[in-house]
Amino acid sequence: MVGATGTMGQHLVKALEKEHELIKVASSGSDIDTDITAAESIENMFRQIGSFDALVSTAGPTYVGPWKNLNDETFRKGVEGKMMGQINLVLIGQRYINPNGSFTLITGALTHEPQRNFANASAANGAIEAFVRGAAIELENGIRINAVSPTVIENSPQYFPYFPGEIPTTMRELEYMFRKSVFGAGTGQIIGH
Amino acid sequence: MVGATGTMGQHLVKALEKEHELIKVASSGSDIDTDITAAESIENMFRQIGSFDALVSTAGPTYVGPWKNLNDETFRKGVEGKMMGQINLVLIGQRYINPNGSFTLITGALTHEPQRNFANASAANGAIEAFVRGAAIELENGIRINAVSPTVIENSPQYFPYFPGEIPTTMRELEYMFRKSVFGAGTGQIIGH
Repeated sequence: MVGATGTMGQHLVKALEKEHELIKVASSGSDIDTDITAAESIENMFRQIGSFDALVSTAGPTYVGPWKNLNDETFRKGVEGKMMGQINLVLIGQRYINPNGSFTLITGALTHEPQRNFANASAANGAIEAFVRGAAIELENGIRINAVSPTVIENSPQYFPYFPGEIPTTMRELEYMFRKSVFGAGTGQIIGH
Repeated sequence: MVGATGTMGQHLVKALEKEHELIKVASSGSDIDTDITAAESIENMFRQIGSFDALVSTAGPTYVGPWKNLNDETFRKGVEGKMMGQINLVLIGQRYINPNGSFTLITGALTHEPQRNFANASAANGAIEAFVRGAAIELENGIRINAVSPTVIENSPQYFPYFPGEIPTTMRELEYMFRKSVFGAGTGQIIGH
């Protein structure tokens, strides 16, 4: 569970830890603190974990702010974070995951429903969703990959004003989207839209 | 016209230069040679051009090759090239473009129709398409932005074996997709699917 200390991660840990052995990963305060913007840090994380059945990521740093502040530098926050961070979790993690295991990454409705201040997140989401479809036909040994794409999250009311007209995804819905990816049979799916 | 010396660029130059004043941009052998993977090189290009009405990009370097060769390093080819290269053309170019001008970027069917060897291009395409939707609601002064998304190109038969079942986009269809973006009224559109 990468992003275990975030709003989504905390809920998922609570929902799943009774039934499954979970290893919590985050940038700090977790079982294995990891900087997902650094490939070496990800490699080091997997080396400590060894083999595993499912990777779930809710880790998605992006630049949120006025369009006029977007430039090559600020745009990198989402490129290195939500995009390459999650892509490297798969490219590196595929050497550690068990046969018939699964990767579940996080994207969001911004891929298709843009909002002001969030163009960086839109781009990162779009990259991840297309990568998931591309990776699904390449991964071997029955390994699956999907993305979960919620709207604004019920437990993040501070974001509601930025998402006019978006019906928030409840924590229960979010949990079930991840359950579908991890315990279902689908691959290359974008769950949520 | 960025990517003016490529297969698509050459055709578009020929089709449009009789009716319009065109400035040809490519990595070499063009009116203004530019390295789109470097923001300073893009800034320098726009400084030389001054103001303009429409930017058309067919520039899309990505990593094409076996999935097993994809890693943080090889993946950067598409991230810095087709993705950030084109995104920087917009983020920087918006300060030079005339009111009611337009940006047209290139993506491709791989966003939704993955093929083996092309996961890097899929991710870059997905990023550009979501960015286009995000930018369309942010750009001011009536400036529009769209993406053209062809399948494998008629004049690139060397790629046909990699795209089983894809009906090639003819050069004429491609030209009309760009015409729709540049001369039409739409914004935030992905033209081609």
